Amino acid sequence: MWEFRSMSFWRAVFAEFYGTMFFVFFGLGAALRWTTGSHNVLHVAFCFGLAAATLIQSIGHISGGHINPAVTFAYLIGSQMSLFRAVFYIVAQCLGALAGAAVLYGVTPNNMRGNLALNMLQPGISLGMATTVEVFLTLQLVVCIFAVTDERRNGRLGSAALAIGFSVLIGHLLGLRLGVYWVGPMIGGAMGAIIYDFMLF
Amino acid sequence: MWEFRSMSFWRAVFAEFYGTMFFVFFGLGAALRWTTGSHNVLHVAFCFGLAAATLIQSIGHISGGHINPAVTFAYLIGSQMSLFRAVFYIVAQCLGALAGAAVLYGVTPNNMRGNLALNMLQPGISLGMATTVEVFLTLQLVVCIFAVTDERRNGRLGSAALAIGFSVLIGHLLGLRLGVYWVGPMIGGAMGAIIYDFMLF
Amino acid sequence: MWEFRSMSFWRAVFAEFYGTMFFVFFGLGAALRWTTGSHNVLHVAFCFGLAAATLIQSIGHISGGHINPAVTFAYLIGSQMSLFRAVFYIVAQCLGALAGAAVLYGVTPNNMRGNLALNMLQPGISLGMATTVEVFLTLQLVVCIFAVTDERRNGRLGSAALAIGFSVLIGHLLGLRLGVYWVGPMIGGAMGAIIYDFMLF
Amino acid sequence: MWEFRSMSFWRAVFAEFYGTMFFVFFGLGAALRWTTGSHNVLHVAFCFGLAAATLIQSIGHISGGHINPAVTFAYLIGSQMSLFRAVFYIVAQCLGALAGAAVLYGVTPNNMRGNLALNMLQPGISLGMATTVEVFLTLQLVVCIFAVTDERRNGRLGSAALAIGFSVLIGHLLGLRLGVYWVGPMIGGAMGAIIYDFMLF
Repeated sequence: MWEFRSMSFWRAVFAEFYGTMFFVFFGLGAALRWTTGSHNVLHVAFCFGLAAATLIQSIGHISGGHINPAVTFAYLIGSQMSLFRAVFYIVAQCLGALAGAAVLYGVTPNNMRGNLALNMLQPGISLGMATTVEVFLTLQLVVCIFAVTDERRNGRLGSAALAIGFSVLIGHLLGLRLGVYWVGPMIGGAMGAIIYDFMLF
Repeated sequence: MWEFRSMSFWRAVFAEFYGTMFFVFFGLGAALRWTTGSHNVLHVAFCFGLAAATLIQSIGHISGGHINPAVTFAYLIGSQMSLFRAVFYIVAQCLGALAGAAVLYGVTPNNMRGNLALNMLQPGISLGMATTVEVFLTLQLVVCIFAVTDERRNGRLGSAALAIGFSVLIGHLLGLRLGVYWVGPMIGGAMGAIIYDFMLF
Repeated sequence: MWEFRSMSFWRAVFAEFYGTMFFVFFGLGAALRWTTGSHNVLHVAFCFGLAAATLIQSIGHISGGHINPAVTFAYLIGSQMSLFRAVFYIVAQCLGALAGAAVLYGVTPNNMRGNLALNMLQPGISLGMATTVEVFLTLQLVVCIFAVTDERRNGRLGSAALAIGFSVLIGHLLGLRLGVYWVGPMIGGAMGAIIYDFMLF
Repeated sequence: MWEFRSMSFWRAVFAEFYGTMFFVFFGLGAALRWTTGSHNVLHVAFCFGLAAATLIQSIGHISGGHINPAVTFAYLIGSQMSLFRAVFYIVAQCLGALAGAAVLYGVTPNNMRGNLALNMLQPGISLGMATTVEVFLTLQLVVCIFAVTDERRNGRLGSAALAIGFSVLIGHLLGLRLGVYWVGPMIGGAMGAIIYDFMLF
């Protein structure tokens, strides 16, 4: 509980709030039909992926740059952070997501707000299928995050934030958004943490 | 005032002129319907973002690679540069932007010049909304720039210029151009400088 | 044969299984008409390329991150791995590809499964032409992999995984998928290994 | 003339041949309507830019990875290579470009070969305009190459090859191909070499 009294702990919590707010702002903003150009999956996926890369570059050295509750949960399962810190991170992430959506709602004209509804399942895709896909997408994301932030590793790695951003990007190229449902990403995050630790130790 | 007499100061001012000229040349050039292919937001955003990355790679070690008056203003607020230097940078940037637009105008056939008009607000978006969006976009850009150029930081960062370029890119994926209006970016830049310093110190 | 008894050998084989499973899952998944947006070659190429980059980041320090039998074959020709290890890698890759396709089949609604058929030749392209293209695409991929993982090299290299991912990406921008046919990639891989060794030694 | 007898000189010449062959193969191949998907400027620009990045990663440590006669000319003007070496590089690049085009011609079905014609000026764009654009595009490319390969520089640079590739990419996003005409790129290359040396010394 000593963390509670340190200033750097609260800065990290604020950084998670900041990161999630902007991630939701960019991600949902790109999914709106906000501009007149043609609009496709590639556009949305790039916006999600590069927003993740940019925000992790911005706050990664302060809080670790989780942005997503599933990632925080995976770090908890992988025994890389305390339960206390994880709870505060997840609360900050939820508040940040709300704030980002509120800002976006405020700056969107009425005639576009209809699209602000979150992702719905396409006809023919059952809930089980969607959850399985989310498990897989979160699993590869968490393995990628654990691999690029592994301190025992050396070699030509380049930018860790960019690698994680591209991992988010390919997840969205498959057409489903991470972090909206809770069950799939949590299972995927836990499995990812376990698989990565199994592969290395 | 000693800076005024050093050669490296004038080289930095020239580098800002050079960078802004090419940034405007590429950015506006991509927004023109210059080619026969399909033309979308992704195209324009990639051109702005990767032009920023390329130019910051080219001049970052000479002048810092601000390119944008809002970024120079943020450095000024963050007490990382002198007022004197900031004024010369902003003048050079404005002249560079004019030169870039003039070159582009010269090489564009008459039948395409109509599009050279700058960004107009879409119907339904008020001036307040647009300014708020610009504040947010500049804020995340400035926080990203401050984070990747922070000398106290270490770790797997990769290319700072590319990270900043992607930050510019996601700003343009939301469909508004930075640096055209003056009020929004300045407020965003100042807020970004303050937030980043608050998060770290 | 001592490798057979070490734990790290089996972890590397598992990592190859893991990497190929996700590579096939993402690559074929992106090629399905899974979403409602417009769908083009750029989308599929980015998904293949960035999936390769992400997976090589994830498993590169464990198994080398081959993912593709042609790459393993090239390493064998270039005398950089034992025959024993190569055989196990290729078996794991084939099982991984099957598993990835099975998972994708399971989560795809019936009305989309028709597209799961693999790449067919376009009318007018003979088998010889297609094989020649595959030889060339695999050749440049293998030369790129050998160059970026060459330990004698130093300098500003950035991320090796990203470089390999972009090499995969440009291969798919030409519109043919790697690793489906066996003859072309094998010849290309062997030629790449020989050309690279010739250029350097 | 001592270079003539060293093995590494001939390897570098071969590497330039190899690099230019694949650059032309990928660049022209992407510009063909080879696939059935939609086809746009972004596709071609990514193929050119990432092919440049991949090939410079592959041969940069052997020959420097010029690929383009204009770049070799700029190095010559910047006094960074001997005239003798430059002549051999340019000859190898021309032969490589021919070989790449020949391979592409061989593997392209008859009904698509019509597009293999090189870039023609769009109606309304005069030769002077096109040459000016080429001067500018080559200028920024050469300044970028000189900046990222400058050995006196340190800092967070990431991948030099990727930076150059993105510089090529934004040049093609403006819709004109580099290296086809000879006058514009040569002037631009020489100007870039002079400007960069002026900015630094």
